Amino acid sequence: MPVNIDYHRYMVTMLEVTDVTDVTAQRGGTCCVPLVKKPLTQADAEHLAATLKALADPARLRLLSIVASSQGQEACVCDLIEPVGLSQPTVSHHLKVLTEAGFLSRSKRGTWAYYRLLPDALTGVAGILAI
Amino acid sequence: MPVNIDYHRYMVTMLEVTDVTDVTAQRGGTCCVPLVKKPLTQADAEHLAATLKALADPARLRLLSIVASSQGQEACVCDLIEPVGLSQPTVSHHLKVLTEAGFLSRSKRGTWAYYRLLPDALTGVAGILAI
Repeated sequence: MPVNIDYHRYMVTMLEVTDVTDVTAQRGGTCCVPLVKKPLTQADAEHLAATLKALADPARLRLLSIVASSQGQEACVCDLIEPVGLSQPTVSHHLKVLTEAGFLSRSKRGTWAYYRLLPDALTGVAGILAI
Repeated sequence: MPVNIDYHRYMVTMLEVTDVTDVTAQRGGTCCVPLVKKPLTQADAEHLAATLKALADPARLRLLSIVASSQGQEACVCDLIEPVGLSQPTVSHHLKVLTEAGFLSRSKRGTWAYYRLLPDALTGVAGILAI
């Protein structure tokens, strides 16, 4: 599959020419240098703001905390609706926002979707806000 | 100053009857238990969402990082306008949002206002997002 090989070569080249901060930004969603150590660049600030916006909603924070504190850091959407007291479409919307922001992964098994915590995104945000 | 003494007594009583989580919420802006350990309550989620909303703006993140990485973690508003390329009223508005959310304190000296990092608020948010 030459396209994939080319893409792989492209990514390896990209990783080689970017510094650690940029690599982390690609992986975890935020830069890794605490903001108390060095002023954020405009690009890093825009990226972090978008990530924080995805978190800055009470329902999404509750959903993320329920998934994250579940066994195996995974939960079925069918078990997330009742605890937050919202409709299934609303819960699915919030879970989609969290998934797109890199905090959760989604897999379908039978009728239901299961969401699992992707810890790197949270770790990245916590790291940049740490003192 | 009997009013102040009464207030002090009131606060001491309040601190004695609240638990550690509540005290931290009053001080730092968020609950102290990482969200991967225990699902957030609705009240904690609403409080954390409001705090994250104050952070979730590129200009505010840049301003906070400039203040936080300045000598003594303090900066004059006069030194914050040029780096972010915004008007003084806009910068002052963003600094007010950060101050009201507990991330900065403000003091007036002569013509200018000075903003200083209040680290507890950032530590509180980072702690609750930590894995």
